[in-house]
Amino acid sequence: MTDGTNGLHFEELSVGQRFESGSFTVDADAIRAFATQFDPQPFHVDAEAAKQSFFDGLAASGWHTASITMRLLVDGGLPFAGGLVGAGAEIAWPSATRPGDSLTVFSEITELRSSASKPNRGWVTVQSETRTGTGNVVQTLRARMLVARR
Amino acid sequence: MTDGTNGLHFEELSVGQRFESGSFTVDADAIRAFATQFDPQPFHVDAEAAKQSFFDGLAASGWHTASITMRLLVDGGLPFAGGLVGAGAEIAWPSATRPGDSLTVFSEITELRSSASKPNRGWVTVQSETRTGTGNVVQTLRARMLVARR
Repeated sequence: MTDGTNGLHFEELSVGQRFESGSFTVDADAIRAFATQFDPQPFHVDAEAAKQSFFDGLAASGWHTASITMRLLVDGGLPFAGGLVGAGAEIAWPSATRPGDSLTVFSEITELRSSASKPNRGWVTVQSETRTGTGNVVQTLRARMLVARR
Repeated sequence: MTDGTNGLHFEELSVGQRFESGSFTVDADAIRAFATQFDPQPFHVDAEAAKQSFFDGLAASGWHTASITMRLLVDGGLPFAGGLVGAGAEIAWPSATRPGDSLTVFSEITELRSSASKPNRGWVTVQSETRTGTGNVVQTLRARMLVARR
């Protein structure tokens, strides 16, 4: 985990820099557990009901995919000094995460900008794709983050 | 929960229509539990460490705020027929969710558009604000959703 004592500072980042996270495999129990707490719709909690739905089978909540993505980024997928503090993001789910999918996050820095009000930090825009082992894109995320300067 | 047998269809929606969710109170245990699983950074899991951080005290992961918002929307905050199926969203966290905050989601339909490829559904854009009991905005969300026609 990035704890602020190591990791890359703003000065060490450049546009085009790429990062790859570790992987995490999602199973049906995890999909149901997250959805039961935060998104209890039939297609996220009940495999039989899901077959009759838009998703044609059990699918993870998009917010579950987003949360797993965050964990993969925190666990080394984006090794920024001071941790990952996001102000906002654009997110899309081109396809659903399914039971058995192994997810990996591929990230690229697309913009760097100094902060006028926070001289000890800079704004970093990161474009991340969360992909299954077969290359299916289950999430795209364009996040604006504050990264510490040295 | 909206299960597709009731709720509003696309034809019953109009731009400017507003919805208000129920409320959910977040405590420190819930903040730590979510973060331990999905966003284990010091300012989300350790109240003492959080005091020394950017957040100046324990703060919920933005993805936790997003997930609670989704639960409030599913539990009647957006009573759409067929449930809530999102293709993507813009999300921002103007301030952090803190222990003890009671969250409510205020939503407004900002755009309605027919789907060329899916004649039995339409695209709905919803702007949602997640607010604390004192009116602090902890999240804004502009989501694009597919809603069933009659």
